Amino acid sequence: MATITWLSDFGSASGYPATMKGVALRICPIATFVDISHDVTRHHVREGAFLLWMTAPYFPEGTVHCAVVDPGVGTERRAIIIKSQKQFFVGPDNGLLLPAASRLGDLLVYVIQNAKFFGTEISKTFHGRDIFAPVAAHLANGVPPKEIGPPTREWVKLSFGQGIDHRGSLEGEVIYIDSFGNIITNISGDLLPKAPRADLIIETERKSSSAHYARTYGELPSGDLIVTIGSHGQIEIAVNRESAAQRLRLRAGDSLKIHLHE
Amino acid sequence: MATITWLSDFGSASGYPATMKGVALRICPIATFVDISHDVTRHHVREGAFLLWMTAPYFPEGTVHCAVVDPGVGTERRAIIIKSQKQFFVGPDNGLLLPAASRLGDLLVYVIQNAKFFGTEISKTFHGRDIFAPVAAHLANGVPPKEIGPPTREWVKLSFGQGIDHRGSLEGEVIYIDSFGNIITNISGDLLPKAPRADLIIETERKSSSAHYARTYGELPSGDLIVTIGSHGQIEIAVNRESAAQRLRLRAGDSLKIHLHE
Amino acid sequence: MATITWLSDFGSASGYPATMKGVALRICPIATFVDISHDVTRHHVREGAFLLWMTAPYFPEGTVHCAVVDPGVGTERRAIIIKSQKQFFVGPDNGLLLPAASRLGDLLVYVIQNAKFFGTEISKTFHGRDIFAPVAAHLANGVPPKEIGPPTREWVKLSFGQGIDHRGSLEGEVIYIDSFGNIITNISGDLLPKAPRADLIIETERKSSSAHYARTYGELPSGDLIVTIGSHGQIEIAVNRESAAQRLRLRAGDSLKIHLHE
Repeated sequence: MATITWLSDFGSASGYPATMKGVALRICPIATFVDISHDVTRHHVREGAFLLWMTAPYFPEGTVHCAVVDPGVGTERRAIIIKSQKQFFVGPDNGLLLPAASRLGDLLVYVIQNAKFFGTEISKTFHGRDIFAPVAAHLANGVPPKEIGPPTREWVKLSFGQGIDHRGSLEGEVIYIDSFGNIITNISGDLLPKAPRADLIIETERKSSSAHYARTYGELPSGDLIVTIGSHGQIEIAVNRESAAQRLRLRAGDSLKIHLHE
Repeated sequence: MATITWLSDFGSASGYPATMKGVALRICPIATFVDISHDVTRHHVREGAFLLWMTAPYFPEGTVHCAVVDPGVGTERRAIIIKSQKQFFVGPDNGLLLPAASRLGDLLVYVIQNAKFFGTEISKTFHGRDIFAPVAAHLANGVPPKEIGPPTREWVKLSFGQGIDHRGSLEGEVIYIDSFGNIITNISGDLLPKAPRADLIIETERKSSSAHYARTYGELPSGDLIVTIGSHGQIEIAVNRESAAQRLRLRAGDSLKIHLHE
Repeated sequence: MATITWLSDFGSASGYPATMKGVALRICPIATFVDISHDVTRHHVREGAFLLWMTAPYFPEGTVHCAVVDPGVGTERRAIIIKSQKQFFVGPDNGLLLPAASRLGDLLVYVIQNAKFFGTEISKTFHGRDIFAPVAAHLANGVPPKEIGPPTREWVKLSFGQGIDHRGSLEGEVIYIDSFGNIITNISGDLLPKAPRADLIIETERKSSSAHYARTYGELPSGDLIVTIGSHGQIEIAVNRESAAQRLRLRAGDSLKIHLHE
């Protein structure tokens, strides 16, 4: 069995994801499809990159990830394939695929060029249908990437950065707000102390707030700010049964500090 | 072929459902996936239980239902498997699985314990990925539940209650508001008369409203309140092309009466 | 492998789509499912018809499209199968299937009648579960349509109309607003000139606005109105990174003119 995952900013109800899947099924009828998300904020490459980074490592060898958040569609931006630890990533060369592929490691990058593997017509506005979906399906069929285009040593980078420990003050940035309003940061959970504590301070541009460090949301009464290690291994800020992002008025890209002692 | 259904409050665009599916595909590559919903109101166990109750009976023998609405994740709540009429239910022991499994009948309940069937790391916040998805995939592969944990005779109950007929006044409660604003009650459709009528009274805490009893939405002009037997066999209150829940200002858990004669 | 696509106005999180899929899997366990959309505006047959029209041509031979936007459920409206260029369409006879099937061509229409291919009970409100899903699954299994019901030479029509060129003024109507707020019209892209231009006028009932004709969204600065040929071959009006529908206050069904010279 071959797995193809799909990620886009097309909207799950727009008909565009289904179109891509129809195209792929004509080429690879045995493919299993998994939607990562089609509701990435429009043109928000960084948000799409995070979702792919978060999910890709859990997929089997041979999985092809087809990701289309592509504000530059129809312009000169390149289309690429990345092979990484026996998984494949297909999409625009705008950084979208990089964090996920880098997390797996051993990147080989190819420029998509061989029109033999494209749809019969190439529109200016929907490369998901005309280029990325058919290429993904051919990869799922076992076509080697080098038949689809030449290797390259240059590609657009994208990184979430890495929070740093400045003498007990952890400085970092918000990568992503999840559907619960939990704030996922670029600060590694390894920088937190082992034992639960109640005396942390979260400092944003607007204000400072006291917070608990806890290993799970359920441990504390509703309404308390919690610093925890999320399921991705990153430091996450949550409020039990509420939105931490609304409470702290933080958005992706905002910076913050977590003070481990006053 | 093995079918796994998914139900959660993670949000369909959150990346968490895709992560669970990736984990499951590594264990059971031939699985067919069906999403019941990932947009259950956050932590609303009762709403998730209704959706599972409504859909499970229509699935084939051998289906594994993996359901995660789990406000107690990371605390002492148990994780269970229920085997019921050749279908399997996997999730937290908080009542979520009970109405669906009870509707099928012949419950056998097991406590999930054997870490051999879990993911390699167990986070405190995402048992969907680390425990429920891999266990569901092993069940889909044919692993008997007793290898995953011991049987138990105790589990958390959850019931929607059952509306009663009090001399022509049907008393019950709202189980669920569907996506059309239709109000699904816990009163059995068997308590309604056979012939269509125009003289019913719906009484809520706020007001009384006259209503038609009809066998289908299309029979009446737009705007009229309709009492009907929903596709689940329960009494349902609808307004043709409008939201009955908004009209009557009713929410899940609210009580109501339907008077068959004044 | 057999592919079944699903389109409805049930809401993707309502449990109804999953119920239909469960029913279909009991009949055709090897089916591959693709959701086109379950978030069609409630009872909006025309919108559902557009999404089906847009996606169906990209699916493989043998695909069965099960589409349920069905305000007349439970009334006398007929249920039909359309066979068209080796694809099948199943749904209510209210025009929903017509544009897609007509686009493929060579229509054969059958009235669904043989209850042997239905569910065991037929509700008045959920023919998706009781009739359309089982019929779709039997078709996916290779049952010939004529076993499910007799051919008919009458059916309900639906057409998006066709924009016309009135001496350089293109007159047409909005078919659909997509998830980006792009306005898809019923005017063929063939009526546009070949070379990009900056002097077009878009005239609606409310106002006239100047617009660029460009072959891709990325070519122009954010905020400019763009007339382009969409991925469906129809003229589309967009605003880079904004909603053109909000800007021009246009909705499906509204008429508009595009003046190619003042």
